[in-house]
Amino acid sequence: MKEKLQIKNTLNRERNTGDDRPQVTVLGLGPMGRALARAFLKAGHQTTVWNRSPGKAGELIEQGAILAESAAEAVTASPLTIVCVLDYDAVNAIVGPIDGALRGRTLVNLTADSPIRARQMAEWAAPHGIQYLDGAIMTPTTTIGQSSAFVLYSGSESVYQAHRETLSSIGGTSVHLGEDPGRAAAYDVSLLDIFWTSMSGYIHALTMAKAENITAKELLPFAQGISNILPDIMAGLAEQVDNGQYPGYDSNLFSAAAGMKHIIDTSQAHGIDTSVLIAANDIARRAIDAGHGTDGYAFLTEVIRK
Amino acid sequence: MKEKLQIKNTLNRERNTGDDRPQVTVLGLGPMGRALARAFLKAGHQTTVWNRSPGKAGELIEQGAILAESAAEAVTASPLTIVCVLDYDAVNAIVGPIDGALRGRTLVNLTADSPIRARQMAEWAAPHGIQYLDGAIMTPTTTIGQSSAFVLYSGSESVYQAHRETLSSIGGTSVHLGEDPGRAAAYDVSLLDIFWTSMSGYIHALTMAKAENITAKELLPFAQGISNILPDIMAGLAEQVDNGQYPGYDSNLFSAAAGMKHIIDTSQAHGIDTSVLIAANDIARRAIDAGHGTDGYAFLTEVIRK
Ligand SMILES: NC(=O)c1ccc[n+]([C@@H]2O[C@H](COP(=O)([O-])OP(=O)(O)OC[C@H]3O[C@@H](n4cnc5c(N)ncnc54)[C@H](OP(=O)(O)O)[C@@H]3O)[C@@H](O)[C@H]2O)c1
Ligand SMILES: NC(=O)c1ccc[n+]([C@@H]2O[C@H](COP(=O)([O-])OP(=O)(O)OC[C@H]3O[C@@H](n4cnc5c(N)ncnc54)[C@H](OP(=O)(O)O)[C@@H]3O)[C@@H](O)[C@H]2O)c1
Repeated sequence: MKEKLQIKNTLNRERNTGDDRPQVTVLGLGPMGRALARAFLKAGHQTTVWNRSPGKAGELIEQGAILAESAAEAVTASPLTIVCVLDYDAVNAIVGPIDGALRGRTLVNLTADSPIRARQMAEWAAPHGIQYLDGAIMTPTTTIGQSSAFVLYSGSESVYQAHRETLSSIGGTSVHLGEDPGRAAAYDVSLLDIFWTSMSGYIHALTMAKAENITAKELLPFAQGISNILPDIMAGLAEQVDNGQYPGYDSNLFSAAAGMKHIIDTSQAHGIDTSVLIAANDIARRAIDAGHGTDGYAFLTEVIRK
Repeated sequence: MKEKLQIKNTLNRERNTGDDRPQVTVLGLGPMGRALARAFLKAGHQTTVWNRSPGKAGELIEQGAILAESAAEAVTASPLTIVCVLDYDAVNAIVGPIDGALRGRTLVNLTADSPIRARQMAEWAAPHGIQYLDGAIMTPTTTIGQSSAFVLYSGSESVYQAHRETLSSIGGTSVHLGEDPGRAAAYDVSLLDIFWTSMSGYIHALTMAKAENITAKELLPFAQGISNILPDIMAGLAEQVDNGQYPGYDSNLFSAAAGMKHIIDTSQAHGIDTSVLIAANDIARRAIDAGHGTDGYAFLTEVIRK
């Protein structure tokens, strides 16, 4: 750490003594951890931060954060610690060795991982006397501290209520989905499934457009238009899936597979990797081969299950 | 055809004699062909229809359409024919044998297929004296005749202008993308790429949610929320792709791959087919292995190109 930052860090520490602003600790200073810490600082919290590797806290120290020298020191500075790192392996690597320091305190885990891992994490926390809440951030770093942020929580409702005010600094909307600590992660993986699969399609579309001399800027408004028609279509398919009935009256699997085939042909003619769409089309083809060509697209939920 | 419909069809024919309403023919009475014919009827056109297999025209005859006995008879009834069938193989199977009947007339092909096929179709039409326009319908059947319909055209601008009024019965917005007859199809395949890949992710998400005891109805508003954040993210990535620079400051490929891994793990734990996301993740992993882990997601356009 450069000397000037070190001095600023010491001044921040001193300022906190006798100061009654609410305290919060952030472990992990990736893009999201930094955004969270910025939001807590902006909302007037004594914010202590720590990151595995050095050099990530500069801007936060300038804004009044205290950089702790160890994860243990960081968590003992506040009743509430937020951890937001790459995945739960990284969370375990950080909090596993400092369970003693966390005893009697609250750990809110805003790292993304699977529902199974979230439930295991809650099971680990309980016997160590750590109040645990699991959460998932559904919007990009740029939304944090803004009205467009969106965060899901699940697990102990009382922990959620106790820290609701501090957590509200993250901004936007938050929803508590119930006592099952895995439920936020279950929503998260389902929603990220839509997100990453869509992103993969978008990247592929931009690549194909470029091969057809269409710039990303030219395609963009139309691509956004496609995004805009999805919510209504999603609603229709959701109803079919909950009812277990998949009428193909408006559009069926034969038509879907033919459509995917044109994209695959065009992509291959340009020498572009088509593995994602081939996988998607194979699922539709399997349904058609099983005699479901005139069923609607949502029938595929039955094909990929099992 | 049932007797009552036959009588109605004859009455429709008689009504047309000496009637000066504009004439249009629709070849293909799948869900989209029927929607188009309904829109033309509603807009007050003498509408002649034909479909390869019988039994699809009943509702249209009730509404005043004339069912022709052959494709040749259908196209000679109007100066303008719209064809909207499964793909261009189906178009060729229908219009190939009746090139003589089409000579001196206009064929607007609203069937979806690849840009290469669209250009071949235009090359076939020219020496046969057929005015040809290619188009792609970007919205579902339910939008046809409504303000939410969206249609792309490309190829002869003069053909587009000559029939603009009749084509406007399809409703909503239409855009002519230039003289290259393949350009509408190039946009179409790129946009359908986004559409079908996203649909595949949505179906997968609903299946995973169900395995986690989340109904489609419960997931829906959040899934729609994900759709709503896509347009802004798309805009950011489009700029990166046009600039050929992919900063990973806000979110990078390491983080994306870790996110996809949680979804894959959860999906596999529930025994759900994960081929689509594995394909998407493999592309990200290839970029990471090549040393691009800290680049942004849009770098993948360079990876799938090759
Ligand atoms: N970025 C977004 O837009 C966004 C949006 C929604 C949700 N999220 C979620 O937020 C979480 C954090 O994401 P991010 O964008 O900040 O970047 P990230 O790349 O997912 O995580 C980076 C952080 O993880 C730490 N880390 C990685 N492996 C570690 C290990 N073995 N031990 C200790 N620390 C380790 C890094 O420390 P070092 O600096 O030492 O490597 C850094 O602090 C992720 O779960 C992500 O899915 C992110
Ligand atoms: N449905 C939608 O929401 C939607 C939205 C946008 C674009 N589109 C596009 O519109 C076009 C038509 O779609 P659609 O939904 O109406 O259903 P479709 O299943 O794609 O097409 C059905 C039509 O194609 C005909 N057909 C198939 N193979 C044929 C062949 N070898 N010879 C002659 N006719 C053949 C069928 O005739 P038979 O009845 O004799 O089988 C029927 O008329 C497609 O290109 C589709 O991608 C559809």
